[in-house]
Amino acid sequence: MAKNVGILAVEIYFPPTCVQQEALEAHDGVSKGKYTIGLGQDCLAFCTDVEDVISMSLTAVTSLLEKYGIDPKQIGRLEVGSETVIDKSKSIKTFLMQIFEKAGNTDIEGVDSTNACYGGTAALFNCVNWVESNSWDGRYGLVVCTDSAVYAEGPARPTGGAAAVALLIGPDAPIAFESKFRGSHMAHAYDFYKPNLASEYPVVDGKLSQTCYLLALDSCYKQFCKKYEKLEGKQFSVSDADYFVFHSPYNKLVQKSFARLIFNDALRNASSIDEAAKEKLGAFSTLSGDESYSNRDLEKLSQQIAKPLYDAKVQPTTLLPKQVGNMYTASLYAAFASVIHNKHSTLAGNRVVMFSYGSGLTATMFSLRFSEGQHPFSLDNIATVLDVDKKLKSRHEFTPEKFVETMKLMEHRYGANDFVTSKDISLLSPGTYYLTEVDTKYRRFYDKKEGENASHCENGVVANGH
Amino acid sequence: MAKNVGILAVEIYFPPTCVQQEALEAHDGVSKGKYTIGLGQDCLAFCTDVEDVISMSLTAVTSLLEKYGIDPKQIGRLEVGSETVIDKSKSIKTFLMQIFEKAGNTDIEGVDSTNACYGGTAALFNCVNWVESNSWDGRYGLVVCTDSAVYAEGPARPTGGAAAVALLIGPDAPIAFESKFRGSHMAHAYDFYKPNLASEYPVVDGKLSQTCYLLALDSCYKQFCKKYEKLEGKQFSVSDADYFVFHSPYNKLVQKSFARLIFNDALRNASSIDEAAKEKLGAFSTLSGDESYSNRDLEKLSQQIAKPLYDAKVQPTTLLPKQVGNMYTASLYAAFASVIHNKHSTLAGNRVVMFSYGSGLTATMFSLRFSEGQHPFSLDNIATVLDVDKKLKSRHEFTPEKFVETMKLMEHRYGANDFVTSKDISLLSPGTYYLTEVDTKYRRFYDKKEGENASHCENGVVANGH
Repeated sequence: MAKNVGILAVEIYFPPTCVQQEALEAHDGVSKGKYTIGLGQDCLAFCTDVEDVISMSLTAVTSLLEKYGIDPKQIGRLEVGSETVIDKSKSIKTFLMQIFEKAGNTDIEGVDSTNACYGGTAALFNCVNWVESNSWDGRYGLVVCTDSAVYAEGPARPTGGAAAVALLIGPDAPIAFESKFRGSHMAHAYDFYKPNLASEYPVVDGKLSQTCYLLALDSCYKQFCKKYEKLEGKQFSVSDADYFVFHSPYNKLVQKSFARLIFNDALRNASSIDEAAKEKLGAFSTLSGDESYSNRDLEKLSQQIAKPLYDAKVQPTTLLPKQVGNMYTASLYAAFASVIHNKHSTLAGNRVVMFSYGSGLTATMFSLRFSEGQHPFSLDNIATVLDVDKKLKSRHEFTPEKFVETMKLMEHRYGANDFVTSKDISLLSPGTYYLTEVDTKYRRFYDKKEGENASHCENGVVANGH
Repeated sequence: MAKNVGILAVEIYFPPTCVQQEALEAHDGVSKGKYTIGLGQDCLAFCTDVEDVISMSLTAVTSLLEKYGIDPKQIGRLEVGSETVIDKSKSIKTFLMQIFEKAGNTDIEGVDSTNACYGGTAALFNCVNWVESNSWDGRYGLVVCTDSAVYAEGPARPTGGAAAVALLIGPDAPIAFESKFRGSHMAHAYDFYKPNLASEYPVVDGKLSQTCYLLALDSCYKQFCKKYEKLEGKQFSVSDADYFVFHSPYNKLVQKSFARLIFNDALRNASSIDEAAKEKLGAFSTLSGDESYSNRDLEKLSQQIAKPLYDAKVQPTTLLPKQVGNMYTASLYAAFASVIHNKHSTLAGNRVVMFSYGSGLTATMFSLRFSEGQHPFSLDNIATVLDVDKKLKSRHEFTPEKFVETMKLMEHRYGANDFVTSKDISLLSPGTYYLTEVDTKYRRFYDKKEGENASHCENGVVANGH
């Protein structure tokens, strides 16, 4: 059986078009800090009319294959996680098959996995299981998480974002699964859903969604600890992992989530928490679940106690989610990419605990272990390929007015047929795919900006080198 | 590692409401035999306003757990395949979690898999791989295929259908995967898709879809044979399997498909075809792919040559697809259930080759091997639980007028909110779930008809005992 199965390579793509949260605050007439501190977000990326979840995933997959020198024939499974529905029957995976058909490879298993922001994690588990199964044919798996998060005007709009992440899966990985340490919590809930089929916007109950998220976190952590303790014969606490990566709808919820683990550890009398802190947090032990999820004093205290550990174990994972926004399925893996970007030279031997959450609801806490790896599948090379700083620096800031205007256009375009796009690719880097047309039969046509892998100025536009 | 992983148990549910194809022919004013012989279909099941893909899957899962005596806590993975979108973000799986939450089990992996009629096969592969992976925790997997196939008025409407199939997955199965014998063909095509998000109806190019299906079949069979020959050191032909089960949009395509395998075997000079037949079919060997998919003479001749083998290896799989119609993801597994129903006492030791197709497109040919199994997971018991004859006999035939009227109501209900259903459950068997209400927030409410597992007359309505 294949050993140390996990993630061999990572690529991320996000649109070069973005809007600053500070500028949005002023534009929306809300109090200063409402988005930047209240939500904890810095910036929000979004698709203009030339990009969508299909074009972003075409870009991410092509880029990963090229940068790691992977022949498309070496891929035996390809799975997509997404909650951005462009077609209710035809999977995004079949659009990506265009890349592989050209290389003469159509024998590739896998389709799309769907449940809100969790679909990417489902796709990842499926790919890893395939490599460990009797069905594995020795080739690589490829997982793509792609989403465009957009909201109707109102308080949820600043929690948008957009990105596609591609993950190459195989044995002897520098990022290997610790498959036995895993806890899931799945249940029937209406915290965030998309029942209005003609609209791209979700129905959101913000307060309920946060409670569901934290409740699922508690439940997953409990399961995770139980399984760890059964197998390892000792208690698990936050001290036993070097990093915690959370699905990040907005950073404030990540801060609350890590504090929640600290509260859990305190109640479990775990070694990660000192006696004084345990005593303080213990005062809240009699709260009912619902009360404890909304108690401001507990929130404040636990975040305060968690702060030093948060700075060490969580803060390095927050860069991309804060800069790009909620990327739904891609969000967790963008956070994961952030820790590789920030810490690649010191990660070998470290454990990272991941928490994936999708409204509706499905959630899993799972564990990965880093090793240095071998080129091209080394942590250092993954960080080089990710090239996060360059991608962030080469973005183009839109004014809030232009952002709102773009959202209006996109509302009309969602589900529409018989139009051509602006084909304005001046802001896109060479190698980026873009939408050119949707014909009367709703068939979508894409093109690729020439000059892939270039990292120089072209036509006077700064290319971001991916 | 778990051995002989596969299908332990099967349950199928289809609505008791149906319309005869012969009656539809008369109503639609088409030539006699257009649907019954031209399409090869006998009858079509459909959901009235009290049923949908969620209620059908609740019914199928509950029934399987009850009839096989499975504690909901014993399920560790639950996956759904469907192309009937009721919510674009919240998975059908999360609705099913209601059954397991009640039993205190929320630690269940898996979400929904999507690509047209192929999603169920993807879910099945995912569940089998999980049991064979390091992540397996010793519990059962459960796969649900659920779909309602409805079409706009016109030539495609008689190819509708509706059903949910539930499959229990685990080791030491009476229906075990031969995982190494497998060929997939996946590509980008617009043969059938659902880009009009507000409508339940697909966009269909009937001719293209048939060509895509047959092309995918050729390609999968080629891959399948190649892998078989590599591992077994001898050529594969249709003689090497006892049954062939095809995804069945309509029976005529199944007839064409099996004939296509015979044509392939003739061109490959395989032992399944005698010399005289090889010579006759060889005359068509110079046709281009496209020509050969539409050549009527070839179609006629190959079906004629295939007839005795079709009667032996395919006909026993056609009962439910002909009687219920296209069930999308459930279609292949309803055909599979038909062969168990018809042949359970002689299946031990037999091999069945399955061909799964989903437009867009994704297709896989794979192999299963039967053994008698042990109660309750025996072929005989599976046939008993399926209880196909009874389920078919206890149906209620609608007139074409009433069918059309129901379709009109369902058009209005699709994607709608703020309504209560008729709650008319007189035609439903005890134990069947049904939709009662969709509130202003689009939240869906279901109830269960009392008296589950009853198989007697109740309120003057013949119950079908499931």
